[in-house]
Amino acid sequence: MSHLFTIGPVEMFPETLEIGGKQVPYFRNDEFSQVVFSASAGLKRLLFNENGKIILLTCSGTGAMEATIMNCFTKKDNLIIIDGGSFGHRFTQICDTHEIPYKAVKVEQGETLTKDMIDEVIDSGKFTGFLVNLDETSIGQLYDIQMISEVCEEHRLLLVVDAISAFLADEVNMDKYGIDAVILSSQKALSLAPGLSVVALSERMLERVAVIDPKSIYFDFKDYLKNSERGQTPFTPAVRVIIELEEIVKRFEKKGIENMIQETSEIALYFRKRIKEIGLDYPSYPLSNAVTPVIFPDKNADIVYKKLIDKYGFTVNPSGGDNAKLMFRVSHVGKQSIEDAEELICAIN
Amino acid sequence: MSHLFTIGPVEMFPETLEIGGKQVPYFRNDEFSQVVFSASAGLKRLLFNENGKIILLTCSGTGAMEATIMNCFTKKDNLIIIDGGSFGHRFTQICDTHEIPYKAVKVEQGETLTKDMIDEVIDSGKFTGFLVNLDETSIGQLYDIQMISEVCEEHRLLLVVDAISAFLADEVNMDKYGIDAVILSSQKALSLAPGLSVVALSERMLERVAVIDPKSIYFDFKDYLKNSERGQTPFTPAVRVIIELEEIVKRFEKKGIENMIQETSEIALYFRKRIKEIGLDYPSYPLSNAVTPVIFPDKNADIVYKKLIDKYGFTVNPSGGDNAKLMFRVSHVGKQSIEDAEELICAIN
Repeated sequence: MSHLFTIGPVEMFPETLEIGGKQVPYFRNDEFSQVVFSASAGLKRLLFNENGKIILLTCSGTGAMEATIMNCFTKKDNLIIIDGGSFGHRFTQICDTHEIPYKAVKVEQGETLTKDMIDEVIDSGKFTGFLVNLDETSIGQLYDIQMISEVCEEHRLLLVVDAISAFLADEVNMDKYGIDAVILSSQKALSLAPGLSVVALSERMLERVAVIDPKSIYFDFKDYLKNSERGQTPFTPAVRVIIELEEIVKRFEKKGIENMIQETSEIALYFRKRIKEIGLDYPSYPLSNAVTPVIFPDKNADIVYKKLIDKYGFTVNPSGGDNAKLMFRVSHVGKQSIEDAEELICAIN
Repeated sequence: MSHLFTIGPVEMFPETLEIGGKQVPYFRNDEFSQVVFSASAGLKRLLFNENGKIILLTCSGTGAMEATIMNCFTKKDNLIIIDGGSFGHRFTQICDTHEIPYKAVKVEQGETLTKDMIDEVIDSGKFTGFLVNLDETSIGQLYDIQMISEVCEEHRLLLVVDAISAFLADEVNMDKYGIDAVILSSQKALSLAPGLSVVALSERMLERVAVIDPKSIYFDFKDYLKNSERGQTPFTPAVRVIIELEEIVKRFEKKGIENMIQETSEIALYFRKRIKEIGLDYPSYPLSNAVTPVIFPDKNADIVYKKLIDKYGFTVNPSGGDNAKLMFRVSHVGKQSIEDAEELICAIN
């Protein structure tokens, strides 16, 4: 047997695989427009973004992060970026490249992000926007969206949330938290093939996007928004993944977003309890339901990683660089149950 | 029955569909690196680019066109662009956006591109590069690559060829014609799902790319080239399409590039002969083997387009705007035979 416990791709559902095995249809017609409309409407409901819009981009999550910054901010802005791992750091690199002013709130490994840390930076200048990876996927820390939302409201900051790994695993409610842009990717909890990203924009952010001209043809949101009115994209999209998206969104809506999050949470909590029981550990900062970093006190995470594949066909997410021996990461999203988590625990043990 | 005669997506092969229906594997490992190495090596052979490099981008063809211009040219360049349809025009829009100087050689609808037309523009200034869509897909004109190659050699111009629809249907030999960059897309003759693009760079172009810093994280070729050394990409790629790419490249190499082109040419010539026999027409300028624009003297192309779908399940490429009633386009690439072409002829008739 073989099972993916990676954070993306994840184990896919049968209806997705069935679509994947079929001829990709022509897409500049009403049939495909209906698919786009249906998928977008479902995503808006799942994100609580009824008055906003959905943009479907053919690129990885990083492409969508860069596109969002290029279309939502300019050199006249000044942003707060939570830099607590490689994905938060990527936001700073994108702003460097596009010369968009920012200050980073650095979260060191093992540290928990607090309001004081943000306040200290915010008090140092005048800011217009806030960028955060809700789940900093590289270390699994789930930042406090309630606290961040209050900070943004107090300081009137536009809030951009990379929810690439948090979506469907943790609460991502645009309406409730006043989120102005959410970035998603197909290969995380959406359980699709990689290659499609989603950006959801609030009404307030749409007004801003309307007057910004990014230095890009491929990543000009205005063009995507105009085409989305007729259920199309300006350039040939990842047609097959969009058809799968419509199907999986239907599945998840039927299940209910609260149930999805609840179920993922139960798997994550069970796995964490068992990890302690077999003598391993996980970080003490707040964790996303999507992923558990498993800490190996004996610094043999890399050896266990290889054995899990060779002996059981279980693939987890290896950590890079200095952390390779200290930990690997286990995902709890995709087609997965508590039984799967228990099998992985037994295999690790 | 149902059959795609569109220029992309095209009819796919069984081995591709089989891969499409399978779980997408984790990709940050040696197994996937081997897939990337194998696919890239095959593409280099099919493009006669043995000393160059292959970049795999997760984006549409337009994304790859923009990325190529951003990574291969700067504001100090001055380019010649063949603007003979919507894709040639797109090159001018990209250069406008990135403030890269250029002069367009305008080819009017129905006109054939000649050396004189290029010479007239070249004599007006000092140029450094040449951008051309080998097959201007919007009207099916195949430009004379031998003539263009000689012009570029004479004037020492870097030659960038969008071969998105010409590859595998017409000769795209980087070595023979001194081509410095070729742009491909997955959903044309490669017969894969949309969402993956390929840029092949010559040795000479690689030297240039090494010293250019595009204003982009997602489209920085240096990062892709560095990662390609270990068979990886900087960001999560369209894993499933890359696995399909490896398989289809094997199929096409086994068949032989000359045989591929020959077979497509035979289908195209047969179809064109029959189109005249049933009282329709096609343009008099040189045509790519990939596509035939079918001209309806009675201006009823849009009605026939709809009937072909409703009555036979045959989808051809409708033309946009003013041309919608005058013509549609029929592709000859993908899983297709002379028998398929004849069935379409009978249906049109």
